[in-house]
Amino acid sequence: MLGTGFMGIVHTEAIRRLGFVDVVAVSGSSADKAKAFANAMYIDKSSGSWEEIVKDPEIDAVHICTPNVLHHPMAMAAIANGKHVLCEKPLTMNSAEAAEMLAAAEKKGVVHATNHNLRYYPVVQHVRQMVAAGELGEVLAVQGTYSQDWLLYDTDYNWRIEAESNGKLRAMGDIGSHWMDMIQHLTGLEITSVCAELTTFHKTRKKPKGSVQTFTGKTLNPDDYQAIPIATDDFGAVLIHLGDRARGAFTVSQVSAGNKNSFRFEIYGTKCGISWNQERPDELWIGNRNSPNQTIVKDPSLLKGSAAGFADLPGGHSEGYDDSHKQLFKRFYQKIADPSIPVDFPTFADGLHGMKLLEAVTASDAKRGWVDLA
Amino acid sequence: MLGTGFMGIVHTEAIRRLGFVDVVAVSGSSADKAKAFANAMYIDKSSGSWEEIVKDPEIDAVHICTPNVLHHPMAMAAIANGKHVLCEKPLTMNSAEAAEMLAAAEKKGVVHATNHNLRYYPVVQHVRQMVAAGELGEVLAVQGTYSQDWLLYDTDYNWRIEAESNGKLRAMGDIGSHWMDMIQHLTGLEITSVCAELTTFHKTRKKPKGSVQTFTGKTLNPDDYQAIPIATDDFGAVLIHLGDRARGAFTVSQVSAGNKNSFRFEIYGTKCGISWNQERPDELWIGNRNSPNQTIVKDPSLLKGSAAGFADLPGGHSEGYDDSHKQLFKRFYQKIADPSIPVDFPTFADGLHGMKLLEAVTASDAKRGWVDLA
Amino acid sequence: MLGTGFMGIVHTEAIRRLGFVDVVAVSGSSADKAKAFANAMYIDKSSGSWEEIVKDPEIDAVHICTPNVLHHPMAMAAIANGKHVLCEKPLTMNSAEAAEMLAAAEKKGVVHATNHNLRYYPVVQHVRQMVAAGELGEVLAVQGTYSQDWLLYDTDYNWRIEAESNGKLRAMGDIGSHWMDMIQHLTGLEITSVCAELTTFHKTRKKPKGSVQTFTGKTLNPDDYQAIPIATDDFGAVLIHLGDRARGAFTVSQVSAGNKNSFRFEIYGTKCGISWNQERPDELWIGNRNSPNQTIVKDPSLLKGSAAGFADLPGGHSEGYDDSHKQLFKRFYQKIADPSIPVDFPTFADGLHGMKLLEAVTASDAKRGWVDLA
Amino acid sequence: MLGTGFMGIVHTEAIRRLGFVDVVAVSGSSADKAKAFANAMYIDKSSGSWEEIVKDPEIDAVHICTPNVLHHPMAMAAIANGKHVLCEKPLTMNSAEAAEMLAAAEKKGVVHATNHNLRYYPVVQHVRQMVAAGELGEVLAVQGTYSQDWLLYDTDYNWRIEAESNGKLRAMGDIGSHWMDMIQHLTGLEITSVCAELTTFHKTRKKPKGSVQTFTGKTLNPDDYQAIPIATDDFGAVLIHLGDRARGAFTVSQVSAGNKNSFRFEIYGTKCGISWNQERPDELWIGNRNSPNQTIVKDPSLLKGSAAGFADLPGGHSEGYDDSHKQLFKRFYQKIADPSIPVDFPTFADGLHGMKLLEAVTASDAKRGWVDLA
Repeated sequence: MLGTGFMGIVHTEAIRRLGFVDVVAVSGSSADKAKAFANAMYIDKSSGSWEEIVKDPEIDAVHICTPNVLHHPMAMAAIANGKHVLCEKPLTMNSAEAAEMLAAAEKKGVVHATNHNLRYYPVVQHVRQMVAAGELGEVLAVQGTYSQDWLLYDTDYNWRIEAESNGKLRAMGDIGSHWMDMIQHLTGLEITSVCAELTTFHKTRKKPKGSVQTFTGKTLNPDDYQAIPIATDDFGAVLIHLGDRARGAFTVSQVSAGNKNSFRFEIYGTKCGISWNQERPDELWIGNRNSPNQTIVKDPSLLKGSAAGFADLPGGHSEGYDDSHKQLFKRFYQKIADPSIPVDFPTFADGLHGMKLLEAVTASDAKRGWVDLA
Repeated sequence: MLGTGFMGIVHTEAIRRLGFVDVVAVSGSSADKAKAFANAMYIDKSSGSWEEIVKDPEIDAVHICTPNVLHHPMAMAAIANGKHVLCEKPLTMNSAEAAEMLAAAEKKGVVHATNHNLRYYPVVQHVRQMVAAGELGEVLAVQGTYSQDWLLYDTDYNWRIEAESNGKLRAMGDIGSHWMDMIQHLTGLEITSVCAELTTFHKTRKKPKGSVQTFTGKTLNPDDYQAIPIATDDFGAVLIHLGDRARGAFTVSQVSAGNKNSFRFEIYGTKCGISWNQERPDELWIGNRNSPNQTIVKDPSLLKGSAAGFADLPGGHSEGYDDSHKQLFKRFYQKIADPSIPVDFPTFADGLHGMKLLEAVTASDAKRGWVDLA
Repeated sequence: MLGTGFMGIVHTEAIRRLGFVDVVAVSGSSADKAKAFANAMYIDKSSGSWEEIVKDPEIDAVHICTPNVLHHPMAMAAIANGKHVLCEKPLTMNSAEAAEMLAAAEKKGVVHATNHNLRYYPVVQHVRQMVAAGELGEVLAVQGTYSQDWLLYDTDYNWRIEAESNGKLRAMGDIGSHWMDMIQHLTGLEITSVCAELTTFHKTRKKPKGSVQTFTGKTLNPDDYQAIPIATDDFGAVLIHLGDRARGAFTVSQVSAGNKNSFRFEIYGTKCGISWNQERPDELWIGNRNSPNQTIVKDPSLLKGSAAGFADLPGGHSEGYDDSHKQLFKRFYQKIADPSIPVDFPTFADGLHGMKLLEAVTASDAKRGWVDLA
Repeated sequence: MLGTGFMGIVHTEAIRRLGFVDVVAVSGSSADKAKAFANAMYIDKSSGSWEEIVKDPEIDAVHICTPNVLHHPMAMAAIANGKHVLCEKPLTMNSAEAAEMLAAAEKKGVVHATNHNLRYYPVVQHVRQMVAAGELGEVLAVQGTYSQDWLLYDTDYNWRIEAESNGKLRAMGDIGSHWMDMIQHLTGLEITSVCAELTTFHKTRKKPKGSVQTFTGKTLNPDDYQAIPIATDDFGAVLIHLGDRARGAFTVSQVSAGNKNSFRFEIYGTKCGISWNQERPDELWIGNRNSPNQTIVKDPSLLKGSAAGFADLPGGHSEGYDDSHKQLFKRFYQKIADPSIPVDFPTFADGLHGMKLLEAVTASDAKRGWVDLA
């Protein structure tokens, strides 16, 4: 486990649920942080040096849960040492890094994954099966948002705000990457053109002089801040072309009060439409023209094809955010255990594609117009 | 009453609820249609000639509920005859017509209104009062959609589909005009730039050889259609600037299965956010960062300032689409009865502003880039 | 129009929408109140004496919208004068009065109605058609509530609180009567046994020395109250048998914070279930076991059989509380206009049945056990 | 782990997430079943004899996830061997068994828990803190249901249907026990009187001759069934007194189509009300009289006092059914690790109290009237 933040905990718990994988070691930005994490999470080894961990012969795979700027060096070193790599999204700082990681991993023959865990809510997989089976008809229009409010105030601060740690795209990179990955994963169509605008509402933010845990510093005392000029986006809006025919729009925001983790999408086809909201992850809405609309409360007996395999509990027993990680990790480690099975999770190729989309968004914002993807 | 369609009925009932205004006469596209409407609705006079009605000395005001192409000639003739005019939206075929109508009405001193009735759901007026009182803080971001499904299939047909009757903008003109009017009415900010794309998914539609009542032909027999090339938009997506600082995006659609009349908007300010959906018109969501979100089920005792005056029933007693017309018409006729009171409804000036916005959307779509409003 | 309260306004507007019925006169508890109402609502005649109104030869029908204690004398006098009578619910103070009214009306041959308007939300009528068509299968279980909060505080006051004006059953009589009427109307089954408990949480309430408009006194000044011992129920809970086989439970409350007018019912059959909430009157939920649940947003094209005739607007255009009155009144006056058509609204027979149920509830509460209906 | 059903999997995963507890062995109704479970879940030891497991010196604690009839013998044997015991609910077949288990566990000094995991959704704990802090005022009324549909058809079968394995109360015992536990846990009040009716709609069910996995046999082939007379309840309705003053009603059902796991409760106090539905476990509704209602989407920063400690993820990141188990188990094993900390989970005392309530419900149904709890 590389990284000791909130995602490090989520990954550790999800791995342990599998029953056939152990969490052996953790690295942090300091030996103390790593040690504290190891103690809290009952992990044997810890280190302030990730370089040490990625060389550990006892270790088969690493999970990269650090600021984005570290993804590439960590992954490259891990691959060089023959470790399998599961990396958080956005995969890298730019598409060149991602391409390099993909090439290295393929060459070395290690298993590689980008953690687009949000694909793995059971009813979301049902949408994918519906589309694949032609139940939506041809996709005409998509829309939605990924909106949060944890950076609403100029006193909100986190490493993601800083372009050096995070890359230039913040809301778009952190959550917009999920939105675009999801819509393509579900429809089986690629985003072919974008017309985007990115906005930084808080041109300056007040950075606390001490340290802040992501998401939790909601009632910080206004003393002892440092004024920091901000270059990363609070909000973005994008028009998209999806495949040849479909059109759409989405927004991303980290300043939309009342939205805690509101990832919403709607997909309208020639036969029916669907709508989903991560804040009610077990529910799926299916819109019809000539018959009543439909809602599914997650129930394996109502899910199509392979979608039922992503639901481990009976109908109406909610499966949450942690469960989506478990589903992805299970498939990642099954692949490691048995290289003959097909890949059933997002790889570095998906992460690379995501970086190219983010670069197109940046280019579109800069030129104030449409940008086509190659 | 000029027009015998669905809106003619809605207007007639809403007028009668006022108690101090009579519906005297109706015109239709034929004498027979007008007569049939008059009989069904218990109206004394009917005529196949609207020119006759607008001259009738017994009549003080006319309601224009016809295809858009007739708005301008009807309004100009009515004004010339000194009639007050309440006209459906979009106000005209283009901004030149609207400007002419506004000038004529002002010169003649008649009362004029554009029927943006959707402003008058009680909880929507509460939003306006919240914004005006500074409860949202500064507006940062807006988003939403106006989505319907009544033109999903290529066998769906209506006069609105034909550019000659309706103007070139269909989804954008019919329902996008409401979206843009609402967001400006509520925030008190004008849309200053747009970047839009309009799409016609059905390039050809099958026109029934007989006549079709709006919205009702959902299960037409596929026989006896005529293939008609279509130039009006099924779907549109727009990025907007609102005032100096706020950013946003919205879509309009008449092909989104399961959306019957789903007019939704979200407005996020520096203090809180709001969200509303016309399919649940009595409910308002207020999003907060550091305290629970809030929901209002329409209740006059919870509405701010003048908003309570738009609710005629106690809390939890729903007020629907018809009621929004009643509220607008009441204020229109009160103004006629007492010219000294302030105008409290959308006038031809609002309708003209709307036409300019629609023209900017058209221009933006054509040039594939941003267009600023003067 | 007998009565000048909130319901008087609702009735007046709904009558006028019909187009073929005039509101000629109004009576109030004083000549001044009646005059004020007549002026505000543009009604020609007013009187402080209802006895005068019910004799007026110009009048064909009366609407009784007064405290319950006056329903019987007013109705009996109106019937004696050959007037058709539409009376608010609960119909009377007891079943003997109701039986007398029914007998008198039948003997005189006048048209009579009990205003269970809530039956006439379009999607509610769809439920009735679903049940009638066997789509629910056999009804097994029903449940729900009618909950409000307008009498939560002991400073809330209204004529309904006083047993002399209202009768002994308050929450149960005012809104429980609607619940029981609805469940029987929709299922076509009669309530055959009840086991009830009624509770008065505020044994004393503070009556303002001045007058209070129903529902509006939410922020009364605590001065100048008079302590009044209260005998009417704030809350009630009832187990029921419905027909031979179905079982269920419901509650009524006027002290449930946050419920403005929350009339909810669920009906479960051997094939599917349904759920509805008056605070979202245009929506219907249909629950399925082996397929997705369904939701209808009111849309005439999706409503079964005669239910579509209760929707005057296209899909997604909300029809609210006022519209439900219009639908009932239209059928009442159509029956007056054409005695040959079948009765399609609740009559005094329904009102009498309701009074018998309320008496069974009272008896059950008194004996603390089950009471069968004859 | 005693038991190899759906709950055995849930328990195993939740234990492993803790990081400091190992799952060492599993027993099943046959050696083969136990072996298959152990293989699938990567558990070292398995046995067809639970008697063997409860004696294993390597084992500190047992989880009892078997049909109810086995709870008592298993727990008594485990306690006799000094094992800590976490047992599924309802705790036993009757209160005598539960009392015996409680006494034995207390005497032996082992830690004991009844698995009312549903208490541990984060927003539910927030309700408990709100009540404790007086934010609801005095509780007046409670209502709700626990409704499912997995036993709707007479072809649905499971061990819970058989009184010998399950005890006489089925819907009431399995899910009604959760409802009653929750309402008392949250309000801090005990149920003091009940008036109940229990109903078996399917007097006969068709038992498949092979074996059936709980919840999954939704589309069984109608061949090869055996007709079994059924004595356990499909549906129940109960009026309750809660503490001295509060009143309420609830239903339980396993035959309500469309309800997958719909555990809903509403609690109304003199200051505000709350409502929750397990099918949307991260949401809490707070109802107010004189201000807007409120909704919380689970967010640790909005949860009161100790409630935040039950949320391990940031706002809007859903925590589901599995997570509620993790929270309970964590506190159970922390208590084992450190006997000095207070008990913060339901014990056998809660399970015993639950059994007494179920016996009161049975008695009330039998006598058709109210039964007071001692």
